Amino acid sequence: PSRLPGYATHQVGVAGAVFDESTRKILVVQDRNKLKNMWKFPGGLSEPGEDLGDTAVREVFEETGVQSEFRSLLSIRQQHGSPAAFGKSDMYVVCRLQPRSFHITCCRHECLRCEWMDLGDLVRAENATPVTSRVARLLLYGHREGFDKVDLPAQELPAGAAGRPSKLYLRALPARPGPEEPPR
Amino acid sequence: PSRLPGYATHQVGVAGAVFDESTRKILVVQDRNKLKNMWKFPGGLSEPGEDLGDTAVREVFEETGVQSEFRSLLSIRQQHGSPAAFGKSDMYVVCRLQPRSFHITCCRHECLRCEWMDLGDLVRAENATPVTSRVARLLLYGHREGFDKVDLPAQELPAGAAGRPSKLYLRALPARPGPEEPPR
Repeated sequence: PSRLPGYATHQVGVAGAVFDESTRKILVVQDRNKLKNMWKFPGGLSEPGEDLGDTAVREVFEETGVQSEFRSLLSIRQQHGSPAAFGKSDMYVVCRLQPRSFHITCCRHECLRCEWMDLGDLVRAENATPVTSRVARLLLYGHREGFDKVDLPAQELPAGAAGRPSKLYLRALPARPGPEEPPR
Repeated sequence: PSRLPGYATHQVGVAGAVFDESTRKILVVQDRNKLKNMWKFPGGLSEPGEDLGDTAVREVFEETGVQSEFRSLLSIRQQHGSPAAFGKSDMYVVCRLQPRSFHITCCRHECLRCEWMDLGDLVRAENATPVTSRVARLLLYGHREGFDKVDLPAQELPAGAAGRPSKLYLRALPARPGPEEPPR
């Protein structure tokens, strides 16, 4: 008999860090309702059945009008008992997105401000949420050293015994790893 | 007004990849009920309010009797509509754990087999689940090149406007990054 409880226990929020490598600009917003005057990445809750990357792209578009493509997963935060999650636990994922358009149409329901900011300025900004600051430093490192150093890209997994195809996010290995170690 | 829906949409499962660097052995199990004869990492569902690393350590102990400590988060899988999740979406996280004991006491309710396997053998095993195989390759790479290349260690975040302290998992940056780029 299955020992799994049959109910969902977590909300999953997804933010999109839309970064343009050529100009080193990153898309940031300030919330209208909470975290006023704090810079953060646009984002929102993942709907059941929605891929993480799709949530990020959708939320970025809804809040800012900017079109983008999923590149990788960068970080995960777990938090318990936040008021916004009604006492449930909450997972918050930040994805790296590549911009496909640049014109901002700020959603006035959700956003107070919305702009393309130099990534170095965001790293140094004092009015950024803690996750935003840390992900900004990670992006600055990736911009300098290569995003393969910080990215968790998506791999498609075949539908197996567990049912449907799914996506696995993990560090990509170099295309040509060294020779296999000899068997022992 | 908040536009957040007030319900949880995801189950979060956590597996523990308990790897002993000195012997290159990794702890794997075969399920009693499903995925028979397929090697995988011990794990189970995260309870509301439980940290991901704590879930991994608890589930490893319950299934195998092996004690361990959390080191890092390695990968995340998202899957939709699996039967085990009763149609909800499902997040499945694999953590890297450091063993603190080695004697196995296999839980007969859950496990058919349970053993310390050479990591190279697990990489080559045909009867391992897809996530297990890919994480095994990632661990082999980390064992050779340094786990800082593959780990997402936990960082404590201060309690902010969002309420309580939380944990952020992301790639650790080198202790001494290069000089800051000049401002433009």
